[in-house]
Amino acid sequence: MFNPAITALTAPPVAIVQQWIDGYDGAHGEMIDLSQAVPGYPPHPDMITALVASAGDSGSLSYGDIEGEPVLRQAYADEMTRVYGEAVSADHIIITAGCNQAFITSALTIAGAGDQVLMTEPCYFNHESTLSMLGISTGYVPCQAEDGFIPKLAAIESAITPRTKALALVSPNNPTGAIYPANHLADILSLCQAAGIWLILDETYRDFQDPAESRHQLLAHPGRDRLILLYSFSKAYCIPGHRLGAICASPDAVAQMAKIMDNIQICAPRVGQQALAQMIAPLMPWREENQQKMAARADAFRQAFAAIDGFEIAAMGAYFGYVQHPFSDTSLAVAETIAKTVGVLTIPGDFFGQHQHQHLRFAFANADLEALHALPQRLNAL
Amino acid sequence: MFNPAITALTAPPVAIVQQWIDGYDGAHGEMIDLSQAVPGYPPHPDMITALVASAGDSGSLSYGDIEGEPVLRQAYADEMTRVYGEAVSADHIIITAGCNQAFITSALTIAGAGDQVLMTEPCYFNHESTLSMLGISTGYVPCQAEDGFIPKLAAIESAITPRTKALALVSPNNPTGAIYPANHLADILSLCQAAGIWLILDETYRDFQDPAESRHQLLAHPGRDRLILLYSFSKAYCIPGHRLGAICASPDAVAQMAKIMDNIQICAPRVGQQALAQMIAPLMPWREENQQKMAARADAFRQAFAAIDGFEIAAMGAYFGYVQHPFSDTSLAVAETIAKTVGVLTIPGDFFGQHQHQHLRFAFANADLEALHALPQRLNAL
Repeated sequence: MFNPAITALTAPPVAIVQQWIDGYDGAHGEMIDLSQAVPGYPPHPDMITALVASAGDSGSLSYGDIEGEPVLRQAYADEMTRVYGEAVSADHIIITAGCNQAFITSALTIAGAGDQVLMTEPCYFNHESTLSMLGISTGYVPCQAEDGFIPKLAAIESAITPRTKALALVSPNNPTGAIYPANHLADILSLCQAAGIWLILDETYRDFQDPAESRHQLLAHPGRDRLILLYSFSKAYCIPGHRLGAICASPDAVAQMAKIMDNIQICAPRVGQQALAQMIAPLMPWREENQQKMAARADAFRQAFAAIDGFEIAAMGAYFGYVQHPFSDTSLAVAETIAKTVGVLTIPGDFFGQHQHQHLRFAFANADLEALHALPQRLNAL
Repeated sequence: MFNPAITALTAPPVAIVQQWIDGYDGAHGEMIDLSQAVPGYPPHPDMITALVASAGDSGSLSYGDIEGEPVLRQAYADEMTRVYGEAVSADHIIITAGCNQAFITSALTIAGAGDQVLMTEPCYFNHESTLSMLGISTGYVPCQAEDGFIPKLAAIESAITPRTKALALVSPNNPTGAIYPANHLADILSLCQAAGIWLILDETYRDFQDPAESRHQLLAHPGRDRLILLYSFSKAYCIPGHRLGAICASPDAVAQMAKIMDNIQICAPRVGQQALAQMIAPLMPWREENQQKMAARADAFRQAFAAIDGFEIAAMGAYFGYVQHPFSDTSLAVAETIAKTVGVLTIPGDFFGQHQHQHLRFAFANADLEALHALPQRLNAL
């Protein structure tokens, strides 16, 4: 009755783990939700003011440009130029309703049913399910804990087949938190260029990267016309309910993407777009403060796990810690038990790949320091 | 370099025709834009108030439920119950970011690459391009002017192949305006049920239907579990910039659709959802007034064409008039000429099907009476 590519998908992982919340009796205190990546602080008050103004402005009511509000495309191009030190103009930008939509639009631009897109294992589950539902076959570049879950060049090279159209990476990584080194990303793009495939790089967590880590130079790379950079405004600006993301790619690619966006939803919603356009530059200092807040949370997370028996942080970086648990059950069963018995909600590794039974993803960026300090008491009670 | 299914698509039709605006010198007065279907009046002031309140409410900032805000699903289920006189509950409803997204979600739920979905010719171009970009093959049920562009049962039956998964219809129709009679729709659903295929019915223009026309009874039909009804909040509530639509289907279908929505954009934007939930019932009288306004515009449109040489209304109904032009050029060329020389923007039939050279779509609902009264002077000057 239904498309088998859809029935074969599991229900959305975040929805599955959130069902566990009702199964926890509160014995250890309030649920600590480290599942879906949602910053645990509100947007800047000026952002709310801008959103309210935009909602009351008749300019947000009508259809907008398919590629996004010109003011937002320009503001985001300026932000890209600032972050990467390479000139990016507005015609390289297309605004989407969140980064999942940026990914499906990018994937479809370069691959159709029967083609292949490579990902890492572990991978971000929505990338995998998006490709599967489109009939695009998925290939995996295995990543090892001892490499900090960063894919080796040789592993990428040997995974490429004649059907491969793109390699999709996430850095800072989801689920591992790993930040791919700038030089390594350059080598990967060179490899993609040589193989005639695209590099899709999802940078949803870019704003939470330690500023000491140098930024990649991919926008200055000769393979830039095969590069697609994805971004989400949800995390850095704390407005996921407004559904806004962006793609940075060649103008030729943007022209193809506009056709897809038109079919998917004509244009991204306008209230958030118009507000964001005014807020990207002024909120730069605020975003830097938040980056420091995240760094403090990362420290607290690290200290907490030093005091937890049997669990070990396998990788961490911006936003996420990827933790090895000590049990013999699958991570799906372990995560459910942890949620229901000690009130800590995580995403099991099983959702990120078929060899991820031993791992759990903790979105430590969601929680304040008090909650992170409570982790040893909770997890040691298991 | 790109997915050939995407490069094969034309640029979005609305964007193409809007480029003609700059080529018009204003000689005959302001451009009369009858292209994209956009009501030519503002939303109700209470809607703006609700949107502003929602934008200032922290509840609109975070991720929402994939299937939509529970309050909106319930409010829309109540509206469906009121309109069709059959009980519809919230678990039959999923909220999307506009009706194009409702269509792609529905199509993908039941068909994958290599399957076929039938449409009418003429058809709504985004349905066609959506299927094409997914690698779903399209079949056409030819519709004739002498039948009011309503597809005959025998024509549908003979178009069904073993690969056909669904028939996608639009009523009130885009581009022709035709309202499919209730009994005919029942027969079509019976036919689909017997053939084991789905009926997707896009009802974007439902609120503009003459209340004298009886509503279909498809929700009481034994084939209801093969029925998917699509709707857009953009037109009736004049808020396309908020990107909101809805699907009504079986709860089993809704569960499959939620997986797709999660990949496409997690959830529809929340500001509009929360505002709409409060406004559907209170704005019922306002929507009825607008329906009457549309009826007056339809009359003015009909009168205008009685005074225009060579052009003939081939079909009309809610929102659109589908007009036969007297020239031997393609409708694409004719529409461009009309836009640039006399300042009337329409969508050429060529975008709605390969045999539509002789037709133009006029969205008469966009224009006030004064603009419609100006049509004879403009078109007779060609």
